[in-house]
Amino acid sequence: MDKERVKPSILPGFMELLPSDQVLFNKMLDIIRENYEKFGFLPIDTPVIEKSEILLAKGGGETEKQIYRFKKGSNDMSLRFDLTVPLARYVAQYFPDLNFPFKRYHIGKVYRGERNQRGRFKEFYQCDIDIVGNGKLGIINDAEIPSVIYSTFKGLGFENFTIKINNRKILNGFFNYLGIEDRVGTLRSIDKIDKIGINGVKKELDKIGLSIEAVEKIIRFMNIEGTNEEILHNLEDMNIDNEEFQLGLEELSLVIDYVKYFGVPNENIAIDLTIARGLDYYTGTIYETFLDDYPDIGSVCSGGRYDDLAKHYTNQKLPGVGMSIGLTRLFYQFKEANIIESNEDSLIKAIIIPMDGCLEESIKVGNRLRNEGINIQVYLEKNKMGKKFNYANKLGVPYVIILGPDELKDEKMTIKDMGSGEQKMFEIEEGIKLLKR
Amino acid sequence: MDKERVKPSILPGFMELLPSDQVLFNKMLDIIRENYEKFGFLPIDTPVIEKSEILLAKGGGETEKQIYRFKKGSNDMSLRFDLTVPLARYVAQYFPDLNFPFKRYHIGKVYRGERNQRGRFKEFYQCDIDIVGNGKLGIINDAEIPSVIYSTFKGLGFENFTIKINNRKILNGFFNYLGIEDRVGTLRSIDKIDKIGINGVKKELDKIGLSIEAVEKIIRFMNIEGTNEEILHNLEDMNIDNEEFQLGLEELSLVIDYVKYFGVPNENIAIDLTIARGLDYYTGTIYETFLDDYPDIGSVCSGGRYDDLAKHYTNQKLPGVGMSIGLTRLFYQFKEANIIESNEDSLIKAIIIPMDGCLEESIKVGNRLRNEGINIQVYLEKNKMGKKFNYANKLGVPYVIILGPDELKDEKMTIKDMGSGEQKMFEIEEGIKLLKR
Repeated sequence: MDKERVKPSILPGFMELLPSDQVLFNKMLDIIRENYEKFGFLPIDTPVIEKSEILLAKGGGETEKQIYRFKKGSNDMSLRFDLTVPLARYVAQYFPDLNFPFKRYHIGKVYRGERNQRGRFKEFYQCDIDIVGNGKLGIINDAEIPSVIYSTFKGLGFENFTIKINNRKILNGFFNYLGIEDRVGTLRSIDKIDKIGINGVKKELDKIGLSIEAVEKIIRFMNIEGTNEEILHNLEDMNIDNEEFQLGLEELSLVIDYVKYFGVPNENIAIDLTIARGLDYYTGTIYETFLDDYPDIGSVCSGGRYDDLAKHYTNQKLPGVGMSIGLTRLFYQFKEANIIESNEDSLIKAIIIPMDGCLEESIKVGNRLRNEGINIQVYLEKNKMGKKFNYANKLGVPYVIILGPDELKDEKMTIKDMGSGEQKMFEIEEGIKLLKR
Repeated sequence: MDKERVKPSILPGFMELLPSDQVLFNKMLDIIRENYEKFGFLPIDTPVIEKSEILLAKGGGETEKQIYRFKKGSNDMSLRFDLTVPLARYVAQYFPDLNFPFKRYHIGKVYRGERNQRGRFKEFYQCDIDIVGNGKLGIINDAEIPSVIYSTFKGLGFENFTIKINNRKILNGFFNYLGIEDRVGTLRSIDKIDKIGINGVKKELDKIGLSIEAVEKIIRFMNIEGTNEEILHNLEDMNIDNEEFQLGLEELSLVIDYVKYFGVPNENIAIDLTIARGLDYYTGTIYETFLDDYPDIGSVCSGGRYDDLAKHYTNQKLPGVGMSIGLTRLFYQFKEANIIESNEDSLIKAIIIPMDGCLEESIKVGNRLRNEGINIQVYLEKNKMGKKFNYANKLGVPYVIILGPDELKDEKMTIKDMGSGEQKMFEIEEGIKLLKR
């Protein structure tokens, strides 16, 4: 007689959280958003589904393989795989209505049908900021991005992290100077240093056919270390006769100089000549951010400068600089590494547990506390007190408010601090003060 | 030589906003979320893509036509078309980990490939709350939902709105009592009253084969008006000999009684026996909310009570009650009716415009203001003052801060109020107070 039941489950590779973790996840999203807004970035929200011709305008095999593409009626559509292509389309489409430099943030879900892999998700949140100029965009903007990164990760509760910075022009100019033809391949090899080490990079460079001399010079270059000032002097002293290299060096020096004014401490920003960013659209400054205490997590935030954002959609030249935090993966990693704990804080300040016959008056006290801006749940079901307390315990709220005839006749409430276990009767006004703290 | 350009555009039937409207939209989302949290609802966030077998478990022609369904590898997947089916799946899946009554809110995008129609969107935000019980759920919860609706629409800035309330058991019991067999058809006909009027309903009822006597009694029933108390007395006086009818009447009386304690004023809640909610899963209380000053907009928020949320996924009986706000359509309607204006408020409090040679110090002042929690943009580009002011004007910020040598040498700032046009020099501390106001 029964209809067949479907086993409740989701597709593999998708993240779904229990409420206690969801509260924490949302809190991180809120902190990120708050910091983006603090610097005056404006929100946009684009459709998750775009025309396939828009998302695939750039071409490229990897993207096409990963994309979720389908037809409905005569429409060929796809789910966005990042927030940068939608930004490019958006800026090209609404160009006359936008105010340049256009500073926008975008927090939303993106989709990639990657093969199943631990810690990789097919649906994930990206939290992006970009500054897009009309025709030109001053290098000083490249110094504001690290200050937003700094402020955001401080906001997320981290003290020890390093924003690593480099400039593609330095790398490209240097490769050019060395007479290397496969500059993209060289860049990609260097980009793997975190995974394969410097010897691995050496092998890769050999494999793509670089001369022994070139490989040696690249390895020496990659080994340049020291304070930011020392690295900059070192690069100057190399006297590389290449315009692009020198332009990159000048840009990097300016960014390092400006970053100070933005209040990013020296210990949180470091030039790292091995940072390459495999993605091919960056043309200048590049960033990767690492948590000093958790190097295994890898980069937690990355970005860079590009020359021409929307060339597939408009002939307006739109240079920009931006960065992105992939929060879904980061959250997973933070949980795995026990960096964050789920019930350290509750969205709900207190639950009111009414004693028998006190439900109506308890509801009224609930209204009053909510009017004071306190998030309150009232336990509404008719149940034994034990069951009510079980519910409150499981909810993980900081306070339980017990209302019985004694409390109600004197306009009082009994508040139990669920952390310390202490329980005390308060005048309502006094209790409100405690709950607001 | 140039690669072919793709015209930047989105698919028809999708909403996309300029930043000034997006700020407003997000503000409405925030107010809704704030109110849901105030009542202690916890957030969940489910994947936009679900297994097709999950979303289609219930079956039903309309849903299947509208759904975005596709394959990737061996997976048959679909985009969710509401947040209720994902909730049912979620509660069934995590049943042992959840705390019942489970109060959750969910704000997210859903997808329906409806044919193109003005004001209808294929991607839209739903903002849902539900209270789900394990086995049973007290009727008092049906009285909390209107209080969340009340608090939310007050928060959104509305004073004059009516939460119309009815009970499916009253309707079903009454139809049963009249000996009507096609009760669903009768319900659907009544549900059209807003569009076709009472005479239209009469014709529809004739058409589906109801007796003249039954139609007359239904029309008389639908014409019952008065205060909530009058309507309840009227229903009692009908002396309908039907158990379901009497149970519905009892529930409705209790809800109307309890709603008072939750602080919903009498003028904001009204029994309306013509409210039917065409959707077939409601089994008790039903709600529709109307803005008194904008009746053409139709219902802005609706919901109700259901007996068995997750029967397609579990044998646990999970009754619940909830409501939903479809914000995308609502925002569109509010804009069309000029109920909301875009630049009434800016996310960014002020933009700092540095005079020549004052950029570095201006950046520092920006940091200081941000540390005070003020959202600040600093104009970073090297441009003529006129161009800088144009940018500030277009941004629509409430204040512009001008920093030149005079201001900086005395630790002052000139603040221009963009509303009044007034401009004055302030001590920085004094200026901060003004900006924080």
